[in-house]
Amino acid sequence: MDLMIGVDLGGTYTKFGLVTEQGDLIAENFIKTDSSTPYEVFFAKLHDEIENLKRTHAVASKIKGIGIGAPSGNHLSGKIENASNLNWPDFIPVAKMMADHSGLPVAVTNDANAAALGEMRYGIAKGVNNFISLTLGTGLGSGIVNDGKLLYGQNGHAGELGHTIAVAGGRACGCGRKGCLETYASAPGLLNTLLGLLHSTETKSVFRKRNHSSITAKDITREAAKGDELSLKAFNKTGQILGEKLADAVAFLNPSLIVLSGGLANSGSLILEPTREHFERNLLDIFKGTVSIQLSEISKKNAAILGAAAMMWEQDLSILNGQYV
Amino acid sequence: MDLMIGVDLGGTYTKFGLVTEQGDLIAENFIKTDSSTPYEVFFAKLHDEIENLKRTHAVASKIKGIGIGAPSGNHLSGKIENASNLNWPDFIPVAKMMADHSGLPVAVTNDANAAALGEMRYGIAKGVNNFISLTLGTGLGSGIVNDGKLLYGQNGHAGELGHTIAVAGGRACGCGRKGCLETYASAPGLLNTLLGLLHSTETKSVFRKRNHSSITAKDITREAAKGDELSLKAFNKTGQILGEKLADAVAFLNPSLIVLSGGLANSGSLILEPTREHFERNLLDIFKGTVSIQLSEISKKNAAILGAAAMMWEQDLSILNGQYV
Repeated sequence: MDLMIGVDLGGTYTKFGLVTEQGDLIAENFIKTDSSTPYEVFFAKLHDEIENLKRTHAVASKIKGIGIGAPSGNHLSGKIENASNLNWPDFIPVAKMMADHSGLPVAVTNDANAAALGEMRYGIAKGVNNFISLTLGTGLGSGIVNDGKLLYGQNGHAGELGHTIAVAGGRACGCGRKGCLETYASAPGLLNTLLGLLHSTETKSVFRKRNHSSITAKDITREAAKGDELSLKAFNKTGQILGEKLADAVAFLNPSLIVLSGGLANSGSLILEPTREHFERNLLDIFKGTVSIQLSEISKKNAAILGAAAMMWEQDLSILNGQYV
Repeated sequence: MDLMIGVDLGGTYTKFGLVTEQGDLIAENFIKTDSSTPYEVFFAKLHDEIENLKRTHAVASKIKGIGIGAPSGNHLSGKIENASNLNWPDFIPVAKMMADHSGLPVAVTNDANAAALGEMRYGIAKGVNNFISLTLGTGLGSGIVNDGKLLYGQNGHAGELGHTIAVAGGRACGCGRKGCLETYASAPGLLNTLLGLLHSTETKSVFRKRNHSSITAKDITREAAKGDELSLKAFNKTGQILGEKLADAVAFLNPSLIVLSGGLANSGSLILEPTREHFERNLLDIFKGTVSIQLSEISKKNAAILGAAAMMWEQDLSILNGQYV
């Protein structure tokens, strides 16, 4: 059986697995992402652990390639570039290192693009040629698929929807600017919206009696599901800002589908319904009724590993033989 | 010599010409766009006039195809769809009609996309694989080129940057929504900004003594060039809104070039300088210094005819033999 190796390199853990062409994850493992050791040491260890997994689970299989999804992973350079959560140099030649170790074709992309490729090959975007995939978690990542292909742009950085301006002069963003979409449509964004509503309104809420610094986005989801009025308002406001901005995204890209995944998307209809409502209301007439917003169905099943492997199944491997892109 | 026919179908005139592969317009003519007669009659006449032009100027040449740029022209359907400035039915099968008349391959696109193709083949975007072309005139049209190809999206409507929201709750737009970019970054947008500044400031201006209803965007350009303080402020505000929104566009698309054409772009550095300044200031760090904003150099030379012809030179004609797309 032919297999791809999918790697999900995160700030804390690096997960990897063996993935079939149909998207079955037949074995997986993980190591800690230790960026206090030199990166050469870490990637040599990752290679050894992948070899162990192959020996145990894939003796009779042929490994065709390695796909790596990582924050700030750049498909066009094959490097991790300026990753803020890793203590390594600014440019890590991940694809080259892993290709040198393994002799296999290797490609890298960022985690949001990997998620989009996972949706396209194994998820709700199967057969959809034009869609946007959004990962709503600690930040807001996005991958754009146009005419069946990931949109990379000139330097591999296309699809930074999290850093488009949602509110002029709005919340300070980690990028140094103000009002970026990810400061609103993310888990911390939902929390800040609730904290703001606690101060600016008198709406009833169980959170009025709580130490505000201990509230989490998960708490808000739980209480909203129970009907907490202020929590529902926070979701509504979050969906409004996201929906309005997604209407703009449609004017750029004319997709037929937008897929939401990540921690905030796990709140289900709490985020989906207000997003859909404000999205449809703000669409240009020619787009009304042509774009569906859906929740990911694979986002809880190691979607990042699947997505990284999907990239390799989609790739023309002949141009990658023992090479990185 | 091989030639393409480029057609620029506008609300008032329809211009057409014979274009070489190198972008030389060797002959041209025009007829009135008479949408009070049935469209079948108009397109039969257009065909006859094109035949006349061929007989006079292209006896020894081979005509390879016809490219048509039109407002609301849809490349994927080959139709003009819901054109607000034409008294014809909502869907005009332009490509099919012209292919039936001529027996030639025919393709249609909207005027903004044709302008982008003209820039890519004959203009300042030659050799550039990722760029955005903006036509700043009565409205704001845009064409997006990604990886060397026009981005069409699911239904051929991608690239409606004029209808992304620049100012929340801002000026009423013809599309029925509020705050669209084209209500600010266009000739009428500049005029409205000046009129607003006449009321909201006491800045000196030659326009204070004029009947406000007679002021045009051209007047503002002329006076700004002479140093009129309020006119310069109007250009600065226009450039600010455009620059901020283009910084957002870069986060979507990661282009290396943005080309400005159309009437407002003919004001040169008056619009270019403030746009560049606010653009660069609002870019995400990873994009700073990577995107150039330039004025079109072909926009005064029948760029719309050249662009429509460029579409055909770029096209794989084998899939279009006597057919429309």
